[in-house]
Amino acid sequence: MFLDTPLYRCEALEPELGCTVSIKLETANPVRSFKARGTEVVASLLADSESRAVVCASAGNLGLALAWSGRGRGLDVTVVASRFATVTKLDRIRALDARLELVDGDHEAARERAAAIARYDGIRLVEDSLDIETCEGAATIGLELVDTAPSFDTVLIALGGGALATGVGHVLKSSAPEVEVICVQPLGAPAMTRSWHQRRVVTTDSTDTIADGVAGRCPIPAVLDDLLLVADDAVLVREASIVAGMRLLLDHAGLVVEPSAALGIAAVLEDRERFAGRHVVTIVCGNNVDVDAYRRWVGAAPVRGS
Amino acid sequence: MFLDTPLYRCEALEPELGCTVSIKLETANPVRSFKARGTEVVASLLADSESRAVVCASAGNLGLALAWSGRGRGLDVTVVASRFATVTKLDRIRALDARLELVDGDHEAARERAAAIARYDGIRLVEDSLDIETCEGAATIGLELVDTAPSFDTVLIALGGGALATGVGHVLKSSAPEVEVICVQPLGAPAMTRSWHQRRVVTTDSTDTIADGVAGRCPIPAVLDDLLLVADDAVLVREASIVAGMRLLLDHAGLVVEPSAALGIAAVLEDRERFAGRHVVTIVCGNNVDVDAYRRWVGAAPVRGS
Repeated sequence: MFLDTPLYRCEALEPELGCTVSIKLETANPVRSFKARGTEVVASLLADSESRAVVCASAGNLGLALAWSGRGRGLDVTVVASRFATVTKLDRIRALDARLELVDGDHEAARERAAAIARYDGIRLVEDSLDIETCEGAATIGLELVDTAPSFDTVLIALGGGALATGVGHVLKSSAPEVEVICVQPLGAPAMTRSWHQRRVVTTDSTDTIADGVAGRCPIPAVLDDLLLVADDAVLVREASIVAGMRLLLDHAGLVVEPSAALGIAAVLEDRERFAGRHVVTIVCGNNVDVDAYRRWVGAAPVRGS
Repeated sequence: MFLDTPLYRCEALEPELGCTVSIKLETANPVRSFKARGTEVVASLLADSESRAVVCASAGNLGLALAWSGRGRGLDVTVVASRFATVTKLDRIRALDARLELVDGDHEAARERAAAIARYDGIRLVEDSLDIETCEGAATIGLELVDTAPSFDTVLIALGGGALATGVGHVLKSSAPEVEVICVQPLGAPAMTRSWHQRRVVTTDSTDTIADGVAGRCPIPAVLDDLLLVADDAVLVREASIVAGMRLLLDHAGLVVEPSAALGIAAVLEDRERFAGRHVVTIVCGNNVDVDAYRRWVGAAPVRGS
């Protein structure tokens, strides 16, 4: 259901980007992101244990995936999210019968509250990027990438908490070390990228980006340690490039994506010279978007003949 | 590359449709339709033979798939299409280095011209829906459907020449006869549906539909014979329902689809009562759309708050 996702070259994108582009598509599943690769492991282990309750903090996609994986196994799932989180993600979490608690702060406040619930109730906390299952889930994407031929030069990975980047990166660095692993984060949420460059945890006071899925402020030290081992570079991109990437994916690949999933394309748009003639894979990691916001973002494109 | 495509439930569509909806997604591949399932077979057989030239008539997707399959094997591919065909499809065929010949008529004129080229040049004609490879290609979708659990009640299949419907239908009727096979065609291109109901070939003088991929006028008798064996019903849908289906798939499933790929959703929209409480699978068979036309079709949706 969540494994063996499509990986395919998208030639229609290439004239605009100046390089060979393949897409690893993580949106064609019931939760519309890669996160269920990890939550399926978490939930199946919990279903076999005494404790059947679990809590996580989430910008939306992890919570949605955990709610889905938990529902099928009769688990008691609580998701803590910022009240500023993407409405569609919150609605879909509720629709899956999970308990949703909103905090009056950002994602870091949700993380603190989820940890408090776990301590108080004595239940399992799923901590994205830190818990091994969340990285192993992402690592299955890496396994599928290295299994393919022809090979590619570079993989572009959305960087938020770091689960996707460290999971995929570990597999690539052990099985295909010649492949360049480049993490991409919005300029408006640069904490992990700055941390990677400075080789120490750097936090920020706020975030300002439409890429809600990667908008953290407080990198986890152990995740940074992993990221330092597996990433070849970490780059920051502007909001306008993220929107341009979303629009390119819509118009030339027929893909609706959430902003985080356009980070890889945005990175190419901002530095075509770097990628010229190379074969890049970009992981389209999710497409849970608010319809109205999405239409505003991509709708500004000029429509010829109208 | 073209097999084992995603099949997943899309709960966000269900409130609008009143039934359980699963999607079989045939668009996440280099040619963005299911047609390469068949052309890969055709091209690999040709690559092993003396003759390395092949011609087909196409509304676009078959030609695109044959051009892709032929390019990788050094075949000499000619595609004949109507000069009124979807521009994006024609551009992508040209980009794959196939010879493209446009005729000053509709798809039936292209079929005649392709047959004449094959006779004159003594090369292989790939005739969609009649040639066994094109049906076997589609049949692999049926095999993937019957391999899945949980099972479903109904499969909704876009009906044009009939390759998809007969290919998928044959597998379902032999391996899962309890599954209802419903073909869906636009009211503006009803020849095969009328033929199915009257159990004899009925042609029409013209077509009038945005669903370019299924706009034939002259059903092939042998294909109708097959369709009579495997289809439980064939229904016609209005253009407005096709557009509404495209918009639902965009807004609630995050999928850009071409009009033919929205026929199944359109059929549910036109007869919710018939499908109430059932589990339907709809095959999203292609998404090669002209960007401007697509934006016109789906852009008319009211955007809340703007």
